[in-house]
Amino acid sequence: MGTGIARSLLRGGHHLTVYNRTAQKAEALRSSGARVAASVSEACRQDIVFTMVADDAALQSVVCGEQGVLASLGKGSIHVSLSTISVALADRLGEDHEQRGQGFVSAPVFGRPEAAEAGRLAVVAAGREEYVSRCKPLFSAMGPKLLVVGAQPSLANTVKLAGNFLIANVLESLAEAIAFARKSGVDARALMDFLTTTLFDAPVYKIYGNLIVEGKHNQVGFALPLGLKDVRLVLEAAGAKNVPMPVASLVHDRLLTALARGHANQDWSVLGRIAAEDAGLQPAG
Amino acid sequence: MGTGIARSLLRGGHHLTVYNRTAQKAEALRSSGARVAASVSEACRQDIVFTMVADDAALQSVVCGEQGVLASLGKGSIHVSLSTISVALADRLGEDHEQRGQGFVSAPVFGRPEAAEAGRLAVVAAGREEYVSRCKPLFSAMGPKLLVVGAQPSLANTVKLAGNFLIANVLESLAEAIAFARKSGVDARALMDFLTTTLFDAPVYKIYGNLIVEGKHNQVGFALPLGLKDVRLVLEAAGAKNVPMPVASLVHDRLLTALARGHANQDWSVLGRIAAEDAGLQPAG
Amino acid sequence: MGTGIARSLLRGGHHLTVYNRTAQKAEALRSSGARVAASVSEACRQDIVFTMVADDAALQSVVCGEQGVLASLGKGSIHVSLSTISVALADRLGEDHEQRGQGFVSAPVFGRPEAAEAGRLAVVAAGREEYVSRCKPLFSAMGPKLLVVGAQPSLANTVKLAGNFLIANVLESLAEAIAFARKSGVDARALMDFLTTTLFDAPVYKIYGNLIVEGKHNQVGFALPLGLKDVRLVLEAAGAKNVPMPVASLVHDRLLTALARGHANQDWSVLGRIAAEDAGLQPAG
Amino acid sequence: MGTGIARSLLRGGHHLTVYNRTAQKAEALRSSGARVAASVSEACRQDIVFTMVADDAALQSVVCGEQGVLASLGKGSIHVSLSTISVALADRLGEDHEQRGQGFVSAPVFGRPEAAEAGRLAVVAAGREEYVSRCKPLFSAMGPKLLVVGAQPSLANTVKLAGNFLIANVLESLAEAIAFARKSGVDARALMDFLTTTLFDAPVYKIYGNLIVEGKHNQVGFALPLGLKDVRLVLEAAGAKNVPMPVASLVHDRLLTALARGHANQDWSVLGRIAAEDAGLQPAG
Repeated sequence: MGTGIARSLLRGGHHLTVYNRTAQKAEALRSSGARVAASVSEACRQDIVFTMVADDAALQSVVCGEQGVLASLGKGSIHVSLSTISVALADRLGEDHEQRGQGFVSAPVFGRPEAAEAGRLAVVAAGREEYVSRCKPLFSAMGPKLLVVGAQPSLANTVKLAGNFLIANVLESLAEAIAFARKSGVDARALMDFLTTTLFDAPVYKIYGNLIVEGKHNQVGFALPLGLKDVRLVLEAAGAKNVPMPVASLVHDRLLTALARGHANQDWSVLGRIAAEDAGLQPAG
Repeated sequence: MGTGIARSLLRGGHHLTVYNRTAQKAEALRSSGARVAASVSEACRQDIVFTMVADDAALQSVVCGEQGVLASLGKGSIHVSLSTISVALADRLGEDHEQRGQGFVSAPVFGRPEAAEAGRLAVVAAGREEYVSRCKPLFSAMGPKLLVVGAQPSLANTVKLAGNFLIANVLESLAEAIAFARKSGVDARALMDFLTTTLFDAPVYKIYGNLIVEGKHNQVGFALPLGLKDVRLVLEAAGAKNVPMPVASLVHDRLLTALARGHANQDWSVLGRIAAEDAGLQPAG
Repeated sequence: MGTGIARSLLRGGHHLTVYNRTAQKAEALRSSGARVAASVSEACRQDIVFTMVADDAALQSVVCGEQGVLASLGKGSIHVSLSTISVALADRLGEDHEQRGQGFVSAPVFGRPEAAEAGRLAVVAAGREEYVSRCKPLFSAMGPKLLVVGAQPSLANTVKLAGNFLIANVLESLAEAIAFARKSGVDARALMDFLTTTLFDAPVYKIYGNLIVEGKHNQVGFALPLGLKDVRLVLEAAGAKNVPMPVASLVHDRLLTALARGHANQDWSVLGRIAAEDAGLQPAG
Repeated sequence: MGTGIARSLLRGGHHLTVYNRTAQKAEALRSSGARVAASVSEACRQDIVFTMVADDAALQSVVCGEQGVLASLGKGSIHVSLSTISVALADRLGEDHEQRGQGFVSAPVFGRPEAAEAGRLAVVAAGREEYVSRCKPLFSAMGPKLLVVGAQPSLANTVKLAGNFLIANVLESLAEAIAFARKSGVDARALMDFLTTTLFDAPVYKIYGNLIVEGKHNQVGFALPLGLKDVRLVLEAAGAKNVPMPVASLVHDRLLTALARGHANQDWSVLGRIAAEDAGLQPAG
């Protein structure tokens, strides 16, 4: 994702300094016009710094510590976190930056790597207005769609998590519907073609319906463990607010089952396979 | 629904004889060019007869009995069942008509009353090819979208039930996501506007997202008891084929809860209210 | 079950005429003192007639029809149904017998075949008081424990179904707890020994805990399809009264999964194996 | 709980020094023969130190820090943790004490305050054998029942959590069964009397069956938030081992619903009220 976003920013005419633990990844962007920093702290000598990592632990390791973002960023500079992290961490980082006179904007994104590359991401941003405003030209370069959701950083993460929950739920419901159809003798391909050209004419149904019908889970668009992590974050955040989410709990258990049954290296659409097996069907495809 | 479909057929230039237990409803179609029959059996003196009723029991009362469709229909004539009925009944009717040398096509439809009126329904048909072919001009008048799914009548009902399960699941997932967002301080309207113009840009998410955000469940598009009936039919059909559908079971229990809590006269989007109450929120809107 | 109950009745000094579709089973009771009838209708020339069959369909085939219990039983005679049947059928039979001036008592039993043989069943009875009274000496012979629950026959079936739901739920909860313990490195045998000598010192936990720990599901005490049938009857009866039972729904889906995965010929404790497999464990034992 | 355990130990003839943040609670034990320490560190000048607190955070605040158990305990002395804490914390404490040459035994207990007072608790212990051995005379004073489950501290917590999950599940299943019975016209009291003198003749069914039938949730034996915490710990521990526990997830959501609906100050048997309300019943009692 990071690479694609970087390219979009450069294409938009922005000056960009990049850093990645794996130097090669950063180097690959030099030819596109990026400067390459040798460390996190060097990358932080900018007005606005973006981070894009896998999870809470990874972000904490980049942000905290003697050479981390918190220690390195100048007063009045802004840290924009693009990662899908917990609502708890988002708010904690907001406070930490605030205390040092730095800005913090939580801005998770929706979209797959191709969309990042093409500048077609949807961005959800939360943070103090003055900081969000300064980031807007950069968000524009990342994609045409921006939702500014409030001043408290975690609000953006709540939206991101709600969205990912809805996607996870689409996966499980399609998995069940397709197992039901297959075992009843209905052609699953025809079913999905029909549904996705009528009521469910939305990208998410097309993409995942297709993957489940074909039983193609080896090409990983979104890895099962990451999907499980996101649903866990939903349940954690909802639990902290006393919001029961029974469907989220159920989908969580299905993802966990898929992991325990050995599908850690597959796309999270492997839920389709789990539903098929539980119905006594051969895997699709 | 029946009235809308009748109008579409008449507009398409087809000759139509109509019957309804409530004579007024049939009479209303006379001005549009329909002939009005005085009984089921009189309505059955046609080449092709459509039935559109609420459930299995209603269809059986129209089809069976001395003056019913089975007894009245001529050899080689076709009974087209448009209702959302059980897969078991669909196949039983197929056999009953077959034994009498009559044709049977199961053809449930997707779409709300407005779509029926406008000739924009999506039709799923199953039955012997010769019979389905004869019905095609009529299906064209009902809507642009037709899926012919096989010879066994219940295949069409399986598709219809799979589709309605997916819609029910959209309702419950939106209900949970919106409760989570609201209790976390996110503006639910902004959330839905964002999601339905990006990943979930599909009619079903727009319509139901809107109803749940506004807490408007008094205007009944699809009544709670009918929604519950359909999910029950899904579970029954899936159970008969040994297909576990945990999300369908869960949604069934939520609809049942809504009914027990006194919402029998509301739209099935009242699931949004149930999720809000279970999160300790005031009803939306 | 029927054989064991018959032996208990004979041992109690009661005169008994028996009938079974499989003549051998009836013959086996002759040496214990039973008379053997050649047909249902011959068996019905008694004051009190017991039926014990597998399900609704089996009972209807014995009770209805020209030579069935309804047609054959004398006025004032009593039909006692011991089977686990639906609440709907129990009440319907009550009405049918009432109309013919016959008595009907619904009296499902708790206990395994050994308990039936030993006269240690627990009986739940419902029906008009005069009829239940006349049956009491017979119930005493079947076991020391009798609950008379009211005049409406289905009340007894409701109790039976509630009890079987609780047992099914014990199975699934033990299956999950044991999978959790095993995968965490806890000795499952030690865990169950501890729990069933402290908080869970009840037969049902001991019997099923043991079966799940040992992974012994081939010796069928209660067959999976029968267990599934009972949970279905619970959900049907609860649904008819608008009572959501989310745990029952979940256990239903687990039993269905076990069936679909090929365990139709095993004891319903095979839920233990399903939970183990879903946790990525080898089957126990 | 702590007070009851202290009394049992004193009664068993053991020398005891006690400490409590609320001095009064400690003082109350002086008359029973306990010495009262002025601080955690003073209480730690013993060979064996017990801690009994509400949750992970409370235990960490007692154990860590300059004056905490870790810093204060002598080499070769043993810290016995009686609290229901996470498996993760149990193992971390094991390592921390090991590094300092101190012993650690995780020994959560089953039983209510009355049982603690009476010396009738059931203890589950895990830790290095030499340490567990030294504690055995003390465990004997606490109750007749001891399960030693292995060397890794968290094994004891796994057993405790598995047990609490089973109890939580008993609550929810009774809640549903009783709602079903009540709405079907069965006398709930008679139902429970029958079941708990036959198949479910176990303390946990008697206690909680009674509370749910009477709708008495104001007298708090085990507070709802603590019950929710424990089921959360189960799901966390199971999730870390990739063990799906669908019933645990469901019970978690029911407890969360009860909390959100305003029952934070009630006994966790309030699940009975939630099930009743969701079935459209008046609260019991």
